[in-house]
Amino acid sequence: MKIAFIGAGNVAWHLAQALAAAGHQVVAVCSRQAESSQALAQVLPETKSVASLTELASMAQDVILVAVPDAAIAAVAGQLQVQPGTLVAHTSGSQPLAILESISGARTGVFYPLQTFSKAKAIDLKEVPLLVEGQDEQTVQALVQLAQSISNQVQQVTSQTRKQLHLAAVFACNFTNHLLGISRELLQEASLPWPLLQPLIHETIAKALQHPPFEVQTGPAIRHDDNVLAEHLRMLDAHPGYQELYRQLTQSIQATKR
Amino acid sequence: MKIAFIGAGNVAWHLAQALAAAGHQVVAVCSRQAESSQALAQVLPETKSVASLTELASMAQDVILVAVPDAAIAAVAGQLQVQPGTLVAHTSGSQPLAILESISGARTGVFYPLQTFSKAKAIDLKEVPLLVEGQDEQTVQALVQLAQSISNQVQQVTSQTRKQLHLAAVFACNFTNHLLGISRELLQEASLPWPLLQPLIHETIAKALQHPPFEVQTGPAIRHDDNVLAEHLRMLDAHPGYQELYRQLTQSIQATKR
Repeated sequence: MKIAFIGAGNVAWHLAQALAAAGHQVVAVCSRQAESSQALAQVLPETKSVASLTELASMAQDVILVAVPDAAIAAVAGQLQVQPGTLVAHTSGSQPLAILESISGARTGVFYPLQTFSKAKAIDLKEVPLLVEGQDEQTVQALVQLAQSISNQVQQVTSQTRKQLHLAAVFACNFTNHLLGISRELLQEASLPWPLLQPLIHETIAKALQHPPFEVQTGPAIRHDDNVLAEHLRMLDAHPGYQELYRQLTQSIQATKR
Repeated sequence: MKIAFIGAGNVAWHLAQALAAAGHQVVAVCSRQAESSQALAQVLPETKSVASLTELASMAQDVILVAVPDAAIAAVAGQLQVQPGTLVAHTSGSQPLAILESISGARTGVFYPLQTFSKAKAIDLKEVPLLVEGQDEQTVQALVQLAQSISNQVQQVTSQTRKQLHLAAVFACNFTNHLLGISRELLQEASLPWPLLQPLIHETIAKALQHPPFEVQTGPAIRHDDNVLAEHLRMLDAHPGYQELYRQLTQSIQATKR
């Protein structure tokens, strides 16, 4: 297929390269940051970095993937004018299909990779769930086919289900990463190396994927080890924000029904 | 060495088996739950399950490992009477060496495996950091030698450093596990399978171990995606505790300096 990208951030960076590697033709990339779209176009075999949505829409293409921040999708949809029948899909976990319906003449869909992307880190998309949705069966089929060319984990889900999945992913990914960041900062303050915690972190994750995490909870909170909890809060005196998080997470662990 | 265990919980379960496999003689196990000490004695080649600390201390041994909940260590230390020169070490991350000093005649130490243990899940201790401390150099050397017989990651750390490490571990392990539990619960409510998030979770951890987590933070909080944040809070209306956690974690992410 001939594909154009609006947006050249982390998601576009990985999707565009995977699609090109799968034999599709990524014809154009357009980003508000010209540097980003030029950088992405440079690593692709036959891609033009274009400066405007008008220029992008004037080129021949089958699919336009809108991989911009969630808050910018509506504005893109409001501006975009496409050739009749062009398939336009966004890549957001949280935004409904309906956010694209103002694009006249387009067939609209969603093409959401359930993964966290950074430009610095290569990812094999084959095992990444790709969740698609379309305004009609024909659109769904086209997106499923496109998705299957880069992933073995393609599923059709509704906007509502995708939104719930995205919320769960925020806890499992974004919030977890933040806790790991706090942990690393606390280690640094004690002049201890971050890799020291690596076996513990790997085992925590392995266990949580094998057993329901609530059933294998360990630590002072679940044991109601009040002396330890009080001492930890005292040790966090210099970090009132982390102290509050510690308190809330401890309460939440203790309130959880197993 | 001849080793006796006080406590037969998750830590004793794994340490005792690893030490026996390394050629040490685990002579006795004593637990307030007779069933637990009997179960542990049964999986060890030459171990007696004993009913009292007096009986345990009367047996010939070089080392007594105190692997009981943090809150119970002081009580054990207050009751325990050992043969002069016996090495007594606890296995806690949060308790100081000094908590054992009331044991008259004993050489005291700490033997702390930095890992999360469940009886149901086997663990290779070789890569698990084992952090030791002792009242004098001779005690430290004995504990280092014992630790090196089961782990390649033996380090000597002070009570203060160990306590800081334990606090960091609570964030990286106990709190992370709780977030994964919430994530799994939210998926279940949407009738979605937990393994769907597995690639995301693995990538989150891989990235956080390769790069400082604060530098690779993604998600709606760091993007200040206010519409998404508001919608997520609304979706958590049925879970006021998780809603409060969501709010606090979002604030903490946004307040973090990179």
